[in-house]
Amino acid sequence: MPSVSERGCLMPASPIRRLVPLANKAIERGIKVYRLNIGQPDVPTPAAAFEALRAIDRKVLEYSPSEGMLSLRRKLREYYHRFNIDVDVDDIIVTTGGSEAVLFAFMACLDPGDEIIVPEPAYANYMAFAISAGAKIVTVPSGIDNGFELPPVEEFEKLITPRTKGILICNPNNPTGYLYTMKEMLQIRDLVLKHDLFLFSDEVYREFCYTGAPYISAFHLPGIEEQVVLIDSVSKRYNECGIRIGALITKHKQLKENVMKFCQARLSPPLLGQIVAEASIDTPAEYMLATYNEYVERRKFLVDSLNRIPGCYTPIPMGAFYTVVQLPVDDADDFCRWCLEEFDYNGETIFMAPASGFYTTPGMGRNQVRMAYVLERPELEKAMTVLRHALEAYNARKSDK
Amino acid sequence: MPSVSERGCLMPASPIRRLVPLANKAIERGIKVYRLNIGQPDVPTPAAAFEALRAIDRKVLEYSPSEGMLSLRRKLREYYHRFNIDVDVDDIIVTTGGSEAVLFAFMACLDPGDEIIVPEPAYANYMAFAISAGAKIVTVPSGIDNGFELPPVEEFEKLITPRTKGILICNPNNPTGYLYTMKEMLQIRDLVLKHDLFLFSDEVYREFCYTGAPYISAFHLPGIEEQVVLIDSVSKRYNECGIRIGALITKHKQLKENVMKFCQARLSPPLLGQIVAEASIDTPAEYMLATYNEYVERRKFLVDSLNRIPGCYTPIPMGAFYTVVQLPVDDADDFCRWCLEEFDYNGETIFMAPASGFYTTPGMGRNQVRMAYVLERPELEKAMTVLRHALEAYNARKSDK
Repeated sequence: MPSVSERGCLMPASPIRRLVPLANKAIERGIKVYRLNIGQPDVPTPAAAFEALRAIDRKVLEYSPSEGMLSLRRKLREYYHRFNIDVDVDDIIVTTGGSEAVLFAFMACLDPGDEIIVPEPAYANYMAFAISAGAKIVTVPSGIDNGFELPPVEEFEKLITPRTKGILICNPNNPTGYLYTMKEMLQIRDLVLKHDLFLFSDEVYREFCYTGAPYISAFHLPGIEEQVVLIDSVSKRYNECGIRIGALITKHKQLKENVMKFCQARLSPPLLGQIVAEASIDTPAEYMLATYNEYVERRKFLVDSLNRIPGCYTPIPMGAFYTVVQLPVDDADDFCRWCLEEFDYNGETIFMAPASGFYTTPGMGRNQVRMAYVLERPELEKAMTVLRHALEAYNARKSDK
Repeated sequence: MPSVSERGCLMPASPIRRLVPLANKAIERGIKVYRLNIGQPDVPTPAAAFEALRAIDRKVLEYSPSEGMLSLRRKLREYYHRFNIDVDVDDIIVTTGGSEAVLFAFMACLDPGDEIIVPEPAYANYMAFAISAGAKIVTVPSGIDNGFELPPVEEFEKLITPRTKGILICNPNNPTGYLYTMKEMLQIRDLVLKHDLFLFSDEVYREFCYTGAPYISAFHLPGIEEQVVLIDSVSKRYNECGIRIGALITKHKQLKENVMKFCQARLSPPLLGQIVAEASIDTPAEYMLATYNEYVERRKFLVDSLNRIPGCYTPIPMGAFYTVVQLPVDDADDFCRWCLEEFDYNGETIFMAPASGFYTTPGMGRNQVRMAYVLERPELEKAMTVLRHALEAYNARKSDK
């Protein structure tokens, strides 16, 4: 029997994914599972998205252009202009979700053996896409004790080698909810300029900044406009994760040409998703505000509740809809598994993402989990009650042994 | 300015793609362009596809499972059973178009430096996906003079090295329309068995076999069930290229696990496309037959017309909706360009795909083009008139020099 690729074997099997079958089994046993494990919001998709689908009047669902429909790219340009992101239609390449934008950015910028530096904890799939491209992700740890702020720039510089091709940030951050300050962004810019690097900036959560501090796009940083590779997605802001529409935005001429070759090979991004995304950009401000307010309330409730549970600590996330939580357990992987496999409180349990999947430094995040506040407030309340009891029972069980 | 990847620079810029801007400019000049260059049929998408879209009754367009919706995978299993392809639901992984199935097959089977052997001419994007995976495509030429039949198996064996991991075929074939015989398929099977290889088999045109000769799936070959990696797509059979739904089908347990890691990294295939694809599988037999009959008629007309033009020759394609045509020109790349840039016949011209893009052996296919019979008969008739005049004018122009 022929053997599979080493590359595939190297791909990390996400600890969240490993738990999915256990969650399904719990549901089969009749247990209600509060899913804080994944960024799949329960907020309804805008009405305009569904109206656009019903209004489709075509004979053939045909290929769209490899770079995406012009009408969508024009709307995206308008949308970015609202955030003072000064890009042209030609700078915007529509991708199959933000995921494909990351993959194509890596494929078009990095050769096997090339390195990029990423503050950790970080979105686990960056690692998978780097392995796909044969590239290496080198991480700089950020700490829960100072709210996951940007590690000192010297820590990045220490890791720079002749193979370093870029820095990757996610802002606002998944999984920490951190929002980079202007001071931090300027430090990153100086580093990128000094070492002639790409700055890959994943900004899919830009709508969700809660502290009054400004959202600073990589494209706001003067002097590195051609070094920025912006990753975007409509998934989170319009609650339409399933349509798989994202974008890769760059002003680097040769990079655009390189990315387009990968786009042409896969022919086109999804047509129906593009139609939905285009309609969604017109979503009224009231919808966006209502979604925002909903997250503000959930965030406050979740953070307050968590910090009141003995031994739990989470910093206040400034953006996105995640927070990393330190739990009074030795091994959060085991605790998350146990919650799904062995525990219930009045027929209910909780599904959290072990934070170990967001770190590459061994041992880091061992007592941390990521929670996504993607459930309504009453559900979050019940989930917090379950968590409190789960922690008590888990630790009592261990001290019994 | 940071430099882009060598990988991206190596990616072939398709000669078809290079001509697209010229075709657009011709249209801007008011020229009618007959597009025989790409497999985008003009046949309407089934009504059931649009009905399924209008019937969507969801609040949230959320992520679907990474392996695809269970209901779609169940329908696909039934569909394959109709073709005596005996696969389980668990063997079927839904992908973002057949394109992603090829990419993931290569990523999960091949490491940088690994080789696969492909009869040429071949679908140009296989090369692009191989470069993405760092793998090498080694080609065995097939010839127009014997209708692009499978090259002698000895030609394959000569090319096998310790790095050879698989054979790739497309059956029925794009670009040649060739349909492999049972004898040929058994030769391929023996080769795959003897050298312990994967057999990548792209069978997206299975509905379109015109000669009464049977369609033989790689899964029909006894003894290599776990070595077959079937590539499929709903694009062509239901005329819905834009929805981006394909499938990778394998019984190789470790390969499934490897492929799933790539699937999980990109989260999920398009939800809306899956809803459309699932509905399309129920398309009534009358629709499928009408589409089939339409292609039968177009094929007969196109082949007859081409072979009546002095100096033109095309073998009779047995399947798919393409044919490779030898033209009385030295340089089909230049002729295709000239048709778009410098020629019109009563305000009309023709867009063909230079065959050079389907070969890797230098110089092969220089006087060949691929034509897709994706236009209605009356349009094809006019296109053939244009072609006849174009060839006369092109060759007259050259002898004037």
